[in-house]
Amino acid sequence: MPRYKLTIEYDGTGYYGWQRQNDFKTIQGTIESAIKSFSGQEIELFAAGRTDAGVHAIGQIAHFDLDKEFPEWQITKAINFYLKDEGIVILDTKIVNESFHARFSAHRRAYCYKILNRSSRSALDAHRAWHVKEALDIEKMQQAANLLIGHHDFSSFRAAGCQASSAQITLDEVKIHQEGQLILINVKAKSFLYHMVRNIAGSLVEVGKGDITIEKLNGILESRNRQMACVTAPAHGLYFTSVKY
Amino acid sequence: MPRYKLTIEYDGTGYYGWQRQNDFKTIQGTIESAIKSFSGQEIELFAAGRTDAGVHAIGQIAHFDLDKEFPEWQITKAINFYLKDEGIVILDTKIVNESFHARFSAHRRAYCYKILNRSSRSALDAHRAWHVKEALDIEKMQQAANLLIGHHDFSSFRAAGCQASSAQITLDEVKIHQEGQLILINVKAKSFLYHMVRNIAGSLVEVGKGDITIEKLNGILESRNRQMACVTAPAHGLYFTSVKY
Repeated sequence: MPRYKLTIEYDGTGYYGWQRQNDFKTIQGTIESAIKSFSGQEIELFAAGRTDAGVHAIGQIAHFDLDKEFPEWQITKAINFYLKDEGIVILDTKIVNESFHARFSAHRRAYCYKILNRSSRSALDAHRAWHVKEALDIEKMQQAANLLIGHHDFSSFRAAGCQASSAQITLDEVKIHQEGQLILINVKAKSFLYHMVRNIAGSLVEVGKGDITIEKLNGILESRNRQMACVTAPAHGLYFTSVKY
Repeated sequence: MPRYKLTIEYDGTGYYGWQRQNDFKTIQGTIESAIKSFSGQEIELFAAGRTDAGVHAIGQIAHFDLDKEFPEWQITKAINFYLKDEGIVILDTKIVNESFHARFSAHRRAYCYKILNRSSRSALDAHRAWHVKEALDIEKMQQAANLLIGHHDFSSFRAAGCQASSAQITLDEVKIHQEGQLILINVKAKSFLYHMVRNIAGSLVEVGKGDITIEKLNGILESRNRQMACVTAPAHGLYFTSVKY
């Protein structure tokens, strides 16, 4: 039974996140229906990252098994045909070994958090970036981010409902840069806790505004107490960008 | 009677272009209604460029007169309040001399045409860029563009219905560059003919694909005959970026 690995782009606006739900339109449910439409087979799709409602992806990875073997290009074309009215597109399909698992084989996940930093809200990026009016000190944000890099207990940065057994995470990279009016926070780790990237983005923005000091952020990290945490940045600024296997 | 100059950003998707129409939602009509809602006064808005349905703007300029003088920031805030459910935002307001006219005082207009050049359609930029699957030779496109720069009769690049009395235009700049999977065509001139930027973009893409030669494009320009012209690039890739006065 061949296993297919998909690379997926989606606009999370209007979807109730990745995970299939009975009465709501989700990314997983929509792609599973498209695969059923062309293959006739009921399948289950496993993703590298189960993104929340409103979160986007430019390089989500998922896998599924089919009874029949199709050429890779044909899988891409057939799924995209049934997705043509959706904000979802399959960028690539590869046939992989059955030992491959989109979620459990992942060595590193990368996310990008986008902030539009100007006084006016955005007409063109309304659902694509978090609008922050106040001036942000990017250098301070990067200094604060540097404190978070490495192996820590990220309990202060995980949301209620997080199912991970441990809050011990090695954060490999947090890089902040500016492109015109956009500020991009790129983060990389083997795995993340629930809402961790959005909580990091929210905290770094508070540092950037001058609402909390870098020392205070360090105190929050060391407290291992999510009651201490700052604002959670909204879902629509978050992009799941890539996975390394 | 004070005259106000607005800088406007909009997502052209879902609007029937700039110009007010009785039964259709337009950018001009929507902003005029917003101004009436806060000021109580029926006004007419004059734009630097009357963009087509689906065309976006990041720096459209328009002016209007009001009986009463308000501080600039208050005009911005009040109009944006009534635009909050729209894909339109006022970026800036300036009080200007009554000799200023958004359309007739303009010295130079700039547009950007965005092409997404990859095999898969876009989930995130579906209404934001023209999707071209075939590989494009950007160097050839720039060479072809260089032929168009300067003073020419652009009859071959104007659409039926163009109201300009003359097709003589001085094209100041055409610069093409790549940003990842995007190809951006930036053009500048004092004024443009109807559909001129989209016709130029369409022709340059045909050169980039190798469907027509640079010599052929030159022949089209010299023919001064719009029957000769190439495909018109779609509206949703076009952005009105700025105006110089």
